[in-house]
Amino acid sequence: MTNDYPQAPAIDASEWFNTTVPLSLASLRGEVVVLHAFQMLCPGCVMHGLPQAQAMHDRLSPLGVRVIGLHTVFEHHEAMTEVALRAFIHEYRLTFPIAIDRPSPQHSIPHTMAAYGLQGTPSLVVIDRQGRIREQAFGKVNDLMLGVLLGSLLSEPTG
Amino acid sequence: MTNDYPQAPAIDASEWFNTTVPLSLASLRGEVVVLHAFQMLCPGCVMHGLPQAQAMHDRLSPLGVRVIGLHTVFEHHEAMTEVALRAFIHEYRLTFPIAIDRPSPQHSIPHTMAAYGLQGTPSLVVIDRQGRIREQAFGKVNDLMLGVLLGSLLSEPTG
Amino acid sequence: MTNDYPQAPAIDASEWFNTTVPLSLASLRGEVVVLHAFQMLCPGCVMHGLPQAQAMHDRLSPLGVRVIGLHTVFEHHEAMTEVALRAFIHEYRLTFPIAIDRPSPQHSIPHTMAAYGLQGTPSLVVIDRQGRIREQAFGKVNDLMLGVLLGSLLSEPTG
Amino acid sequence: MTNDYPQAPAIDASEWFNTTVPLSLASLRGEVVVLHAFQMLCPGCVMHGLPQAQAMHDRLSPLGVRVIGLHTVFEHHEAMTEVALRAFIHEYRLTFPIAIDRPSPQHSIPHTMAAYGLQGTPSLVVIDRQGRIREQAFGKVNDLMLGVLLGSLLSEPTG
Repeated sequence: MTNDYPQAPAIDASEWFNTTVPLSLASLRGEVVVLHAFQMLCPGCVMHGLPQAQAMHDRLSPLGVRVIGLHTVFEHHEAMTEVALRAFIHEYRLTFPIAIDRPSPQHSIPHTMAAYGLQGTPSLVVIDRQGRIREQAFGKVNDLMLGVLLGSLLSEPTG
Repeated sequence: MTNDYPQAPAIDASEWFNTTVPLSLASLRGEVVVLHAFQMLCPGCVMHGLPQAQAMHDRLSPLGVRVIGLHTVFEHHEAMTEVALRAFIHEYRLTFPIAIDRPSPQHSIPHTMAAYGLQGTPSLVVIDRQGRIREQAFGKVNDLMLGVLLGSLLSEPTG
Repeated sequence: MTNDYPQAPAIDASEWFNTTVPLSLASLRGEVVVLHAFQMLCPGCVMHGLPQAQAMHDRLSPLGVRVIGLHTVFEHHEAMTEVALRAFIHEYRLTFPIAIDRPSPQHSIPHTMAAYGLQGTPSLVVIDRQGRIREQAFGKVNDLMLGVLLGSLLSEPTG
Repeated sequence: MTNDYPQAPAIDASEWFNTTVPLSLASLRGEVVVLHAFQMLCPGCVMHGLPQAQAMHDRLSPLGVRVIGLHTVFEHHEAMTEVALRAFIHEYRLTFPIAIDRPSPQHSIPHTMAAYGLQGTPSLVVIDRQGRIREQAFGKVNDLMLGVLLGSLLSEPTG
């Protein structure tokens, strides 16, 4: 039953980049959303995850896929600050909307990362038009397989 | 109107590899088919096209995508013989079904290549469940975009 | 005349990583030294320069080549702090000695970078056994050509 | 003792490409020579060995390195014919001199390959100015290390 897919938790952001207004999954209901969780000092994110996210944004935005970056800092908090992320986004020419996952006062893991139960970075979450999680993957994701999933979700009815 | 998509011409093969029986598009009606036209001495085929075709075969066969190679020799005919292709398939560990496009007695371009009007190699033809051409591309094809198309076609009713 | 090669300016470091004692070019006289100037938020450094520097350190240290990294922050100073660099070195598993180029109180360009007249990052400076600059290159450097130069310098007499 | 390096056997060629006159190691005495043994249907040769040989030819010819290709057919003889190699050289835009290793009437391994005792393809043989073998490697060879060896050999006296 597709009814069994879990509802995607809300994005709890302390800051947004590359968007004039904060985004929310609720307001994106009806669209296919890809959430890319990364840390700016994570080599796998820099080498694979972020270029893939940028490619999805460049190529699939016209088809209705919304790519959102989520900076989920769970280590080296003192290094991956907001000012550092701003410079990183500029230097790597990232143009898709990026949220800073809200830090937890008690835990090293930030709020949204905890809500999704992400194992680390890079992680990819694919959310369907009903706001449900259809895929959650840790590590490198194959372009071809990711495309097939997105093509399939884009073919589902909006309503 | 999707009714406007052209029907895919038949594969006119003089020989088959990696299959116990000759294949035909007619017998594959109801499935999504990817036809990969290549020449064994074409660098772009060896570097990009054939690895992509093998990856599709490995990853997407379980989802119902059928990958067929088509050796469309239109130059260096004396070099790209059947015995040479057999060695090539072995050395490159290609495991998907491959047809030799039937040579024309009059022209350098073989029969199936002419019927499709292919510009050269590598070329990719994507055929839907109704046997219609949904994409025909010459050169390097992006994995992500190819996946989106295939995911969309797999979502269409069998008809 | 090889006597015309300029003498390499001293490294003016405010901090060192991956070494128990500060290094100096004077104390390395008699060895072939490669100085790799980088910034942790420079994509070309992360993609090409630093992997090349690490490969030189791994493969050529036994042959007598000394690789030294130089963090020459000339932009985004507030992002590329010492604590951020420490996390970066850890995450990217860099094991060769790395100096922080001493910041200038007046200028955005740090001291050693200014003394060498480096154009930006990544930059590579190759220094011979007599402490003279034999190559200074900005941007991506070809492995084969770099190897030829180093093989030639290693063949020069120490004295 | 460098006197212990073995003398490189002569190249026994049945055909030459990309040169107006047959080459011989004897006539190249005084130069640094790189012999690249390959088969046109060997994936490791096509992916790594031949591009590296072409890069050496392009970049190091002006420094005095002579690159020679050697088509050492020891399997699929009926596929890797002279006419097929000619088409291959054209399609892959190889511009350095290439010899066909003379086939043996009794054995699958051709004459020069047997004389050098090569294990397979790709293989690289580096020959110094005195015509002695300084390196013989089977498989993928690192650009940086190859460059260091060549830079060192170029620094040796000619006489």
